[in-house]
Amino acid sequence: MDTLSAEIIGLERSALDRWITGDPQGYLNLYAPEVTYFDPFQEKRVDGLETMKTLFAPMKDNKSPITEPRYEMISPKIQRHGDIALLTFNLINYGKLPNQPETMLARWNSTEFYGRIDGQWKIIHSHWSFIKPEIKQAPKQPGA
Amino acid sequence: MDTLSAEIIGLERSALDRWITGDPQGYLNLYAPEVTYFDPFQEKRVDGLETMKTLFAPMKDNKSPITEPRYEMISPKIQRHGDIALLTFNLINYGKLPNQPETMLARWNSTEFYGRIDGQWKIIHSHWSFIKPEIKQAPKQPGA
Repeated sequence: MDTLSAEIIGLERSALDRWITGDPQGYLNLYAPEVTYFDPFQEKRVDGLETMKTLFAPMKDNKSPITEPRYEMISPKIQRHGDIALLTFNLINYGKLPNQPETMLARWNSTEFYGRIDGQWKIIHSHWSFIKPEIKQAPKQPGA
Repeated sequence: MDTLSAEIIGLERSALDRWITGDPQGYLNLYAPEVTYFDPFQEKRVDGLETMKTLFAPMKDNKSPITEPRYEMISPKIQRHGDIALLTFNLINYGKLPNQPETMLARWNSTEFYGRIDGQWKIIHSHWSFIKPEIKQAPKQPGA
């Protein structure tokens, strides 16, 4: 792995390590002021760092029932173009619910668009989605 | 809207106009050789134009039962950084199933990472996901 890939993946892992314990501050520190964001729980795109802070604020008070959280980051890939580094990966979350053995909690597609701003790598766009969600009425293909 | 935003959104709309009729060639023409891709039907990230051609090949033979397809592109936004233009939007698909009035078919989060390569805007990464899919077992938050 080259130096840039190692640096970007390291930033992402540091934010994830905090996130899975219920702490969003690692990601909030990485977001650029102009950040745009998609995840499966929002009605539409979320725009801007201040809106992200409001979105993640409840996490700090909500204690998760999950213990021993961990994740696998699968096939992280960097596509670099000048001062932009696009990181994509799949992610699997594991953890223990009360009185249960470890289980797989979720599987994700992850897009993190990093840009070098004032000498620091910041997330300019983030998109999280489920791998093959089992939904009630699934369309046959994207955009159709 | 500035000239760049109009150009990129125009490229995307041209590809979408073909896509909703069952023709993937508009997108295939836009993908860079290095394209990476997520949608909700894949087990993992799809890498490379040749793999995308294989993925979309069955569309050309499968006749959709949907007639009068149309879409709404909601709040398209361009984040430009040098020779990169990130386009994000929400999309709603409509169409008619046999003997039914027009219905809403699907709602999407869409990320299209365009880069200027040899003077042409090409898609370097694409991520399609459902808005708020109603799934059987939903985790509470991304990455956890």
